[in-house]
Amino acid sequence: MSTQVVIAVDVGGTGIKSALVTRDHEVVHTERHATGAERGADAVAETILAVATGLAEKARADGLVPTAAGIAVPGVIDEHAGVVRYAANLDMHDYPLRELAEAALGLPVRLGHDVRAGGLAEATLGAGRGLDHVLFMPIGTGIAAAHIVSGRVLAGAHGAAGEIGHIVVRPGGPRCSCGQIGCLEAVASASAVGRRYSALAGTTRNAREVAELAQAGDPIAAQVWAETVDALADGLLTGQALFDSELIVVGGGLAEAGEQLLAPLREALRGKLTFHREPGIVKALLGDEAGCLGAALLALTLVEVDHPTDTPKPVKKAATRARKKAAA
Amino acid sequence: MSTQVVIAVDVGGTGIKSALVTRDHEVVHTERHATGAERGADAVAETILAVATGLAEKARADGLVPTAAGIAVPGVIDEHAGVVRYAANLDMHDYPLRELAEAALGLPVRLGHDVRAGGLAEATLGAGRGLDHVLFMPIGTGIAAAHIVSGRVLAGAHGAAGEIGHIVVRPGGPRCSCGQIGCLEAVASASAVGRRYSALAGTTRNAREVAELAQAGDPIAAQVWAETVDALADGLLTGQALFDSELIVVGGGLAEAGEQLLAPLREALRGKLTFHREPGIVKALLGDEAGCLGAALLALTLVEVDHPTDTPKPVKKAATRARKKAAA
Repeated sequence: MSTQVVIAVDVGGTGIKSALVTRDHEVVHTERHATGAERGADAVAETILAVATGLAEKARADGLVPTAAGIAVPGVIDEHAGVVRYAANLDMHDYPLRELAEAALGLPVRLGHDVRAGGLAEATLGAGRGLDHVLFMPIGTGIAAAHIVSGRVLAGAHGAAGEIGHIVVRPGGPRCSCGQIGCLEAVASASAVGRRYSALAGTTRNAREVAELAQAGDPIAAQVWAETVDALADGLLTGQALFDSELIVVGGGLAEAGEQLLAPLREALRGKLTFHREPGIVKALLGDEAGCLGAALLALTLVEVDHPTDTPKPVKKAATRARKKAAA
Repeated sequence: MSTQVVIAVDVGGTGIKSALVTRDHEVVHTERHATGAERGADAVAETILAVATGLAEKARADGLVPTAAGIAVPGVIDEHAGVVRYAANLDMHDYPLRELAEAALGLPVRLGHDVRAGGLAEATLGAGRGLDHVLFMPIGTGIAAAHIVSGRVLAGAHGAAGEIGHIVVRPGGPRCSCGQIGCLEAVASASAVGRRYSALAGTTRNAREVAELAQAGDPIAAQVWAETVDALADGLLTGQALFDSELIVVGGGLAEAGEQLLAPLREALRGKLTFHREPGIVKALLGDEAGCLGAALLALTLVEVDHPTDTPKPVKKAATRARKKAAA
C-alpha cells in the first residue's frame, strides 16, 4: 500500500518553509524557498502554488500519495472561507488563496494562520503535547498568541483572536504600530527590547545582544531586560485571567534566551497572581518548524481515515527530533 | 409516551432557582427556595438535594420522566470532577456535590458554574442564539464572563477562565477584593458604582439610583456613570483582543439600565478599537432565569437521544417568553 502524505506550506514574510508529512507526523521531505514579497500578491501566490504543486509531483515521483494540503499565512486569515483577509507582509487583501490552491493541486486545501498553525503543532506534537489548555506565545518582531483547547485553536469570530501583544500593559507608554498606546508588543517584543536599549544607551543593539549584555552585567541591559520581563508578566496575568491556561509555551526569537527569560518571568508572574491558577511556562520545542508542522496538521484534518483498522502509531518523529534538538 | 424532563437547579448566595425542563427547552415547573447559606455547607447541600429530589418526585407525580439533573453553583467549580473547589458564598471547599446528588437522585448529574451556565443559556437560547462566538458578561456585585464558542463554554484548565472582572484597567486605582489594584470589578461593578458615587457625593446611593440621578442630570452621577462606561470599554477592548467575539451579551443588575449603559459603551469601545473587529453589544434576554436554563442545558447533555426519529422541535418557549418579557 502506498504511503499517504500531506503537503505543508508555511508562508513567511521572507521565506516559505514546506514539507511532505505522513499521517503519523513523519516529515519525509522539506524545501525552503524565498517568498519574494516585493513582487506583489499575485507573484507571491504563484510561488506558493508552484511550491505546493512541486511537492505534489515530488511525492508522486517518490511513490507517495499526496492527499491534501495545508497553507499557513501571517495576517488576518478567514480560515472558514479560505481567504487571506489582510496580510501586510504579502500585500494580500481578501485573497482567495484556498480556492486557487485547490484548483492548482486538485486536492482539498486548508488555509491557516501562521501563529495558530504553530500553536497547534506545539500543543499537539511539541511542548504542550498531552495537555488540553495551552497558550502559545511567540515573541519576535511582534507578540501574538494562539489559544489551543483540546487540540482546537480558537480563531475568534473574525480570525482575530489571541492578540495578546495588543493588550495595553503600560498606559502612557510607547505608541504601538496598531495605533494604541502601551501595548505589550510595543514594550516587550524583541524589537521593543532593542529599541529601548538603543534609546537608553545611545548605541544600537538587538534583543539577542541586549540579553548577552544583561547576562554580562551591563546595568542598562539588565534594566531593559527586567522591564521586559515585568511587562510580559503583566500581559500573561491578563491572559491567565481570561484563558486559565495549563501551560504557556513561549516561542519566537526572544525565547532563544531560554531560562534567562523564563525563570524571572515565572517568578514575576507568580508575584502578581491572586485568585489565578499558576500556569507552567516553558520554551517552545519545535522552533521554526512549528508553522510548517501546523500546516500539515491542518491538512491532516481533511484526510479521510480510510483505514480505521490501522494500528495507531504514537511515534512522532518530527517532534522527537525537535525535542532532541532543543535538549542538545 | 411519557415526556422526559431534566431537573435544573441554580444555587445563588441567597436563593435557589429550580425547574423541570423538557428536551425542547420548555419550562414546565419552577420553584424558588432560600439558600440559607448561614447554616454552613452541609445544610446548604442538604437543601440542594432536597430541592432536586422534590422536583424528581413532582415530575413523576405529574406523569413526567426525570432523566438527569444540572446544578449550577457560584465559585470555582471543577466541572470535570463534579466538585465545588471553592464557593465563598456557600462555605464549600472541595465539596463533591455531583456525587452526592447522583446518590440522592439515582440519576446522572452535571455540576456547572453559575455564570458559565447562564452564558450557555444566553448563547444557545437567549441573546446570542445562532451565533458561534459569544461573550456573556454579567455586571452585578462583581463582574465575570463566560466565553462560549460553538455552544461550548470554555472553563479553562482549572475552571477559572473568563475572569474579565479581574483584568487591571486602572493601575493605581482602588484595591479589588481579589488583592490586585485597579481591577475592572473594583471600578465598574454595580457595587463599585454605588461606592464611587457615595464617596464623591457624601450620600449613599446604589447603582440603580446613580443611573437614575445621572439620567436626571446630576453632575456627580453623570461623572461616575461616564467613568464606569470608560472602564468597561477598556475591559471589553482587552477581551476583544483575546477572544474576538461576535457578540457581547451584558447581564446582571447594571444591564437593567439598558441603553443608558449600552449606547455609550458601544461608542466608547468603538473609539478605542484599532485592529480589533467590533463586536455587537446587547442586553441579556433571559434575566435571572439564565442560570437555571443553563443548568437544564447541562443536564440535557447527559440525556441519551433515545428517539432519534423524533421530529426536532425548534420552538423554545422559555426563551420566547423571556424575549417577550424583555421586549415588554
